[in-house]
Amino acid sequence: MSSSDKQITLYYNKLSVHVQRASMVLEEAKVNYKKYPIQIFAPKPDWYLEKINPRGLVPAITYGGPDVPGDQPSPEATVIIETSIIMEFIADLHPEANLLPKDPVERAKVRLFIDTVNTRFAPTFLGFVANGDSYQTVLDGARAVQKLLPDYGKWAIGDQFTIADIAIAPFVSRIELASTCGVGKYAAGEDRLVLDALNSPEFAKFKAYSANLQERPSFKATFDGDYIIDELKKLLV
Amino acid sequence: MSSSDKQITLYYNKLSVHVQRASMVLEEAKVNYKKYPIQIFAPKPDWYLEKINPRGLVPAITYGGPDVPGDQPSPEATVIIETSIIMEFIADLHPEANLLPKDPVERAKVRLFIDTVNTRFAPTFLGFVANGDSYQTVLDGARAVQKLLPDYGKWAIGDQFTIADIAIAPFVSRIELASTCGVGKYAAGEDRLVLDALNSPEFAKFKAYSANLQERPSFKATFDGDYIIDELKKLLV
Repeated sequence: MSSSDKQITLYYNKLSVHVQRASMVLEEAKVNYKKYPIQIFAPKPDWYLEKINPRGLVPAITYGGPDVPGDQPSPEATVIIETSIIMEFIADLHPEANLLPKDPVERAKVRLFIDTVNTRFAPTFLGFVANGDSYQTVLDGARAVQKLLPDYGKWAIGDQFTIADIAIAPFVSRIELASTCGVGKYAAGEDRLVLDALNSPEFAKFKAYSANLQERPSFKATFDGDYIIDELKKLLV
Repeated sequence: MSSSDKQITLYYNKLSVHVQRASMVLEEAKVNYKKYPIQIFAPKPDWYLEKINPRGLVPAITYGGPDVPGDQPSPEATVIIETSIIMEFIADLHPEANLLPKDPVERAKVRLFIDTVNTRFAPTFLGFVANGDSYQTVLDGARAVQKLLPDYGKWAIGDQFTIADIAIAPFVSRIELASTCGVGKYAAGEDRLVLDALNSPEFAKFKAYSANLQERPSFKATFDGDYIIDELKKLLV
């Protein structure tokens, strides 16, 4: 059995940005995987905390071992937690999917892009939508990302679609979705302000990039906008 | 000129744990590199903020381009910031140094170990020494790391020395050093308590691992205990 034939189970929740990152990587690598749902805002089952992720977070995956039900994980399987580790793992396991460049400098660019997303852009999603931070924080994050976008090519580092693109897609799409639907704790009218700003010439490059991301089949296959909006509405009452 | 012949300049400060990580990777990979000192607790020069690291942090490296003085970085060089990105970059550039395993599962183990160090152990250094947190926080961190140590082999994932080992070495050594020298904001006597605990049977595996780390030539070549203690004393008055 080759490494790519081994069973993979993804512990997931469709609301989670981090789960979407893991799911997109699995889709891009054309991995045959099983899914097991985990509730985010509920106590985790004991078996999950004991055998899968003591941190109680999703996503997590099991790799290898027998084909067992998701809630009865085998001790023979390898458990991999933390989104960035899962992304690199699947990219390592499936080099043919080209989710990481081979050149060390290009790989470093991918990782710097992800670091910038994680530190500058990703936090603005919950900041704006759940905490009601100013829409300007979203724009500041978008500026930091846009500065890194190349002059040529559709993706974060040029012509090659990589885990850098996967890292940002769930965040930019949720910000646009929540603003379009008027769902969030932001001040009245800021949904319109953020959308108008992102449609302005200053953000033309970022906006085109965001559109490319949301056209990607692996994005579409892993993004359930109706579900996300319904859940956000429940959470933000 | 092969990739390994390109110039590398490391912007460094001997006090910094993160710089020691980068330095150890460079030493392990037998890279021929130049060093340029940056003061940590002083405003950074404009050229550093503009051309090297807008975040103002060390370490940073330049890679490639002409051989220029460190304070006149060439626009032809690639700048790489963030310790974890630098570690992976040098490991990618020098596969012959075997600082990352080739097997995807083993690579994931290395990254999970680093993540555990970063989230559970590393913060206890400043917590204990600079903020005066209880020595129990250090022991909690050491327990989290010890749980990951394998039954066989001297290193984080077994017989192969990797960037996982590099990630923890600067932290464990500084905690031991500061405790041995009685330097820190911790409550009186806690230096003795932490050292005694680490010497107790409960931490035998962790302690042996720590000793292995501090015997490693790349560690010794990049650790200046006298300098670190002098600087800590100045900072903690």
